[in-house]
Amino acid sequence: MPKALIFDVFGTCVDWRTSVAREVSAVLPQVDATAFAMAWRAEYDPAMARIREGGRGYVPLDDLHLENMHRVADAFGVTAPDSLNAAWERLDPWPDAVPGLRSLRAHHIIAPCSNGSIALMTRLAKYGDLPWDCILGAELAQDYKPKPAVYLGCCSALRLDPSEVMMVAAHNGDLDAARDAGLMTAFVPRITEYGPEQTEDLGPSANWDIIATDFMDLARKLHS
Amino acid sequence: MPKALIFDVFGTCVDWRTSVAREVSAVLPQVDATAFAMAWRAEYDPAMARIREGGRGYVPLDDLHLENMHRVADAFGVTAPDSLNAAWERLDPWPDAVPGLRSLRAHHIIAPCSNGSIALMTRLAKYGDLPWDCILGAELAQDYKPKPAVYLGCCSALRLDPSEVMMVAAHNGDLDAARDAGLMTAFVPRITEYGPEQTEDLGPSANWDIIATDFMDLARKLHS
Repeated sequence: MPKALIFDVFGTCVDWRTSVAREVSAVLPQVDATAFAMAWRAEYDPAMARIREGGRGYVPLDDLHLENMHRVADAFGVTAPDSLNAAWERLDPWPDAVPGLRSLRAHHIIAPCSNGSIALMTRLAKYGDLPWDCILGAELAQDYKPKPAVYLGCCSALRLDPSEVMMVAAHNGDLDAARDAGLMTAFVPRITEYGPEQTEDLGPSANWDIIATDFMDLARKLHS
Repeated sequence: MPKALIFDVFGTCVDWRTSVAREVSAVLPQVDATAFAMAWRAEYDPAMARIREGGRGYVPLDDLHLENMHRVADAFGVTAPDSLNAAWERLDPWPDAVPGLRSLRAHHIIAPCSNGSIALMTRLAKYGDLPWDCILGAELAQDYKPKPAVYLGCCSALRLDPSEVMMVAAHNGDLDAARDAGLMTAFVPRITEYGPEQTEDLGPSANWDIIATDFMDLARKLHS
């Protein structure tokens, strides 16, 4: 039994695509809001890659999101207000996420292990009522997943050995990195994260320690 | 109105003296448990002082507590098990603390700004049901209060200006340092923290922004 469960957030706990699209449509009614949300998200990994590879010092994701937003707005031929960047603080949890986390919290320490900053994860938890015990993740390590320092930083902040901590994610690559760092792993598919045409992460790519259908199923499988 | 409230914990949110004494008496029935608890706490500030002054790198409070416990046990002529160090994760909140924090949480981000580690504050919150939005404090700054880096580190982790954050404490010295760092301040007396003979921090020593009788009164004063 893991003493702590740490979670990917964007995609695993919350539905960023429809939530960001909703926020975009409220301030930029002239654009295809879902396409804007997808383009904004597509800038995410390249922005972090430069930092992971040492080409740029650590910059919180809030700032990367803002830079990316303006780049995407340029491509769409519009001007986005800086305030739209707070869209990432207003992402709806998947329906099972909050009841599942409440159930898991009774038996384990639960915390995000996200590339989002402490500020972003705190405001997102307040918006969606995600009942974290503490906020962990990239900012503690001053680096970005899937670098091992992020997973290991969560464990050391909790004063736990990696073998006592389970990473929960809807992304096989995240679990690959967590397993390489010595953590236990749980896969929960989110097959519409990228919309109805999603082709990746539809199922587990390896024999993760737990494969669950959602967070309630994860709680059942851990506690039965 | 502050956007976030950050709290001293030992003494301000929880009654460490009677709680540690309870844990001591369970494993060391032969000693005066309250005297042991007071002696253990008396080692707290000197242990941090060396780190604040640069004579030692940052060491989490859990480790300082353990070193101090063995020193105090020696002085009492007993051997304490390492497991007793977890006494600091089982401190009872003052009766108004949890309902007061719940009320405050509806209007503000609330977080500890303690010298306790992330691990210690997380386990203490789980034990006492303290409803923090996130865990901030000394570990983020890798230094100890009353150094300004600790208060400022809480503000920057929340991406807030110090003027948007209020420090809540039962210790005037903590508020002095927070005010010097640019934060708002609220004083809540805990006149039995050190027992019936307490002589310090019985009342406010300065014109703090709010002076409240307890956390419920603080919520009333902030929201009326």
